[in-house]
Amino acid sequence: MQNFDFYNPTRILFGEGRIADLDKQVPANARVLILFGGESARKTGTLAEVRAALGSRTVFEFAGIEPNPSYETLMRAVSQVKENQVDFLLAVGGGSVIDGTKFVAAAALFEGDPREILFTFGRTLRQAMPFGSVLTLPATGSEMNDGSVITIKAQGAKLPFMNPLLYPVFSVLDPTKTYTLPQRQLANGVVDAFVHVMEQYLTYATDAHVQDRFSEGLLLTLIEYGPDAINNKDYTARANLMWVATLALNGLIGAGVLHDWATHAIGHELTAKYDIDHARTLAVVLPAMLQVRREAKRSKLLQYAERVWNIREGSEDERIDTAIARTRAFFESLDVPTRLSAYGVDADGISAIVDQLKVHGMVALGEHGDVTPEISRQVLEASL
Amino acid sequence: MQNFDFYNPTRILFGEGRIADLDKQVPANARVLILFGGESARKTGTLAEVRAALGSRTVFEFAGIEPNPSYETLMRAVSQVKENQVDFLLAVGGGSVIDGTKFVAAAALFEGDPREILFTFGRTLRQAMPFGSVLTLPATGSEMNDGSVITIKAQGAKLPFMNPLLYPVFSVLDPTKTYTLPQRQLANGVVDAFVHVMEQYLTYATDAHVQDRFSEGLLLTLIEYGPDAINNKDYTARANLMWVATLALNGLIGAGVLHDWATHAIGHELTAKYDIDHARTLAVVLPAMLQVRREAKRSKLLQYAERVWNIREGSEDERIDTAIARTRAFFESLDVPTRLSAYGVDADGISAIVDQLKVHGMVALGEHGDVTPEISRQVLEASL
Repeated sequence: MQNFDFYNPTRILFGEGRIADLDKQVPANARVLILFGGESARKTGTLAEVRAALGSRTVFEFAGIEPNPSYETLMRAVSQVKENQVDFLLAVGGGSVIDGTKFVAAAALFEGDPREILFTFGRTLRQAMPFGSVLTLPATGSEMNDGSVITIKAQGAKLPFMNPLLYPVFSVLDPTKTYTLPQRQLANGVVDAFVHVMEQYLTYATDAHVQDRFSEGLLLTLIEYGPDAINNKDYTARANLMWVATLALNGLIGAGVLHDWATHAIGHELTAKYDIDHARTLAVVLPAMLQVRREAKRSKLLQYAERVWNIREGSEDERIDTAIARTRAFFESLDVPTRLSAYGVDADGISAIVDQLKVHGMVALGEHGDVTPEISRQVLEASL
Repeated sequence: MQNFDFYNPTRILFGEGRIADLDKQVPANARVLILFGGESARKTGTLAEVRAALGSRTVFEFAGIEPNPSYETLMRAVSQVKENQVDFLLAVGGGSVIDGTKFVAAAALFEGDPREILFTFGRTLRQAMPFGSVLTLPATGSEMNDGSVITIKAQGAKLPFMNPLLYPVFSVLDPTKTYTLPQRQLANGVVDAFVHVMEQYLTYATDAHVQDRFSEGLLLTLIEYGPDAINNKDYTARANLMWVATLALNGLIGAGVLHDWATHAIGHELTAKYDIDHARTLAVVLPAMLQVRREAKRSKLLQYAERVWNIREGSEDERIDTAIARTRAFFESLDVPTRLSAYGVDADGISAIVDQLKVHGMVALGEHGDVTPEISRQVLEASL
C-alpha cells in the first residue's frame, strides 16, 4: 500500500424526500443561485421542490449548463453571481452541472483570468464559494469529490482541475429523482461508474487488499443491479446505483494505489472531436485498453476475472480474454456500443485523436506513464 | 436501503513516516497537550518523534490514560488543559487514548458537570476542543469517528457518547508504529475490527448491497491478513489491518443499514464486571449471539457463510452452523478464547451480568430491539 491522504468533508443526505433538508443545510440568510441544465429540472418538479425547501431565502436561477460544461457558459453564471451578490451556489443536476458549479465557485472569487484555474489544474486556488448539490443523475461522483472537467469551446479542450476547496458542503442523493431519466443516461451512468472503478483498480498489485475488495464490491454491485436500475423504476436498484457511483470516485478506493486514467484521457479527446457521450467513449476505449495493455495489467486482470466475473477455468490468457469479453458484453447489454465504428469513426479518424493527445500533453499516460501516443493509437485501432 | 446521512471530515495521513506531517496539521501557534497511555509511547520513541514534529510549539504531556479510560483520570487532564491554556489536544495511542481525548475535548469546554456529557450520550454538546491523533494500535476505529466510551469507576459503568464535534481533525496512521505491539493487543485488534463489521453487517437483508460488499471485503481482508499481521512485522499486513480497522467503524458500512450492537452491550458489562479485554468479550459473545439469534439473522447468516467463508454445501442450517463454527475457530486461531469459562466465569457469574444490563437499561438490544435480558442470558449461557 502506498502512503496516502484521505480527506472528504462532503455531507451526504441520502434517500427519498431529502430535498426538504436543504433548509437545514443552506445558511438561513444565504443569497442562493440555483444552477441547472435543461428544462427537465423544471418540468419534473425538482426545481420547485428545491425552491420550496429554500423557503424565504433570496433565490436566483441559472439555466443552461450543458453536457461537457463550457467555460463560455459558466462565465455568464459568474457574472450573475457578482451582479446579484450571491453567496451560496446550489447545483441541481448531474455531473456536468456539479462540475460547472465548481468552476463558478472558484471563478467568482478568482483574481485574474479565470482560465488560469484550468491551466493550473486548480492548484493556485486560494478561495472558493461554498456550494451544495442536489444530484439527479448517478454517474460521475462529482457530488462527493473536489474535481471537475471544463471545456473551453474556443480551444476545443476539456481541462480537468481539482482543489480541496471544491468539495460540496453537502449533496442530496434522492434515488427517486432518477425516475424521470432516459434509459440512455442511466446506462451511461452505469458505464461511467464502472470505468471510474477500473481506472483505480485495474492497474497492478500494490498489496492494497481492502481497496481491491471495495473496488470489486462496487463492480459486482453494478453488474448485479445496473441493468435493473436502467430498466425499472426500482428504488433499491436506483439507490444502489446512486451510492455506488458516488463511492466510485470519492477518493476511497483510490487511496493508497496507483491510478491509470488513460482510458479517460483518450475518451476526452473522442468527446471533444466527435461529440460522443463521455461514458460511451469509455465503453469504447476500456476493453481495447485492457487488451493492448494486458501484460502490464496481467496480475490484476487475472484477479478481476476470478473475483468479479467468477472465471476460474482455462489458461491465464484464456481467462483474461474471457474477462475482457465479459466486460465488453456487459456494456453492450446496456445498449452502449463498444466499437468506434458504431459511432461513425473509422480508421481515418484515429490520427486526429492521437494528434490531439499530443497537443494536450497526454503523451505518458497510465499507471506506469508508458502509454505513449503510439500505444494510444494501438488502443484506438483495437477499438474500431 | 434506509435513508442516511454520511459525514466524516477527519483527514487521514496514512503510511510510514507520516508523523513528520504533524507540523502542517497542528496550528503553528498551538499550545498542545499530548495525551498517551503507559510509558510504551516514550520507550518506543514515538513520543519523541511526535515532539520533534511539533517543533517549537509549546507542548505539555498527560500520561496514564488507561484501557477503558476513566472519567476520574480524564478529569485530571481537563484540569491540566485549563491550567496551561492548552488549545489543541493530540492523542498518541490506541482507541482508549483517543476515546479519552474525545472526552477531554468535550469536558474542557463544558459548562456544568461534565458527567452530563455521558448521561446525555453527547447530544447536548455545543462545543469541543480541536484534536488530532497518532494511532499506534489498530482496533477501535476511534481515529476516524465521533464516538467514545468512558468508564465512570465510581459507578462501575461504561458509557458511550458521540457528537459530530468529536471527529478528530486528523489522524496519523503509520503501520510501522504497530511493530512494538504485543501479539495479544494485535489479536484483540483483529477481533475488535471483525466484530465492528459484524454488528453493522450481520443483521438482516436491507437491500444495501454495496454496504454488504464492503463489509464482506473488510471481513475477508481480516481473515486473509489478520494472522500475518499478528505474527509478523510485515508492513503490508499491518497496513491492511490498520486501514481495515479504521474503515470498520467510520460510518461507511453502517450508512443505510440497521445495526445490532447487542454483542457490544453485553461485552461492556463483562469488561466492567470481570475486567476481560474488550475484544475478548466480543469473541465470547458474538458466536453465541449468532447461534441464539439464528432465525432473526438467517438470511444474512447464509450470505455470510457463502461470501465470507465460501460455504456452499449442506442444508441451510448446516451452512449456518459451519459459518458460526468457522467464526469461532478464527478467533481461537488468534489465541483469543471464545468461551466464558476460559476467563474464569462460570454459570453463577451470568446473573450478575444480566442484572447489570437491566440496571443500565440494556433491555431491548439488537437490530430489532428484541434482545431482552432473558435472551442475553441465553446468549451468555451459550457462551460458557
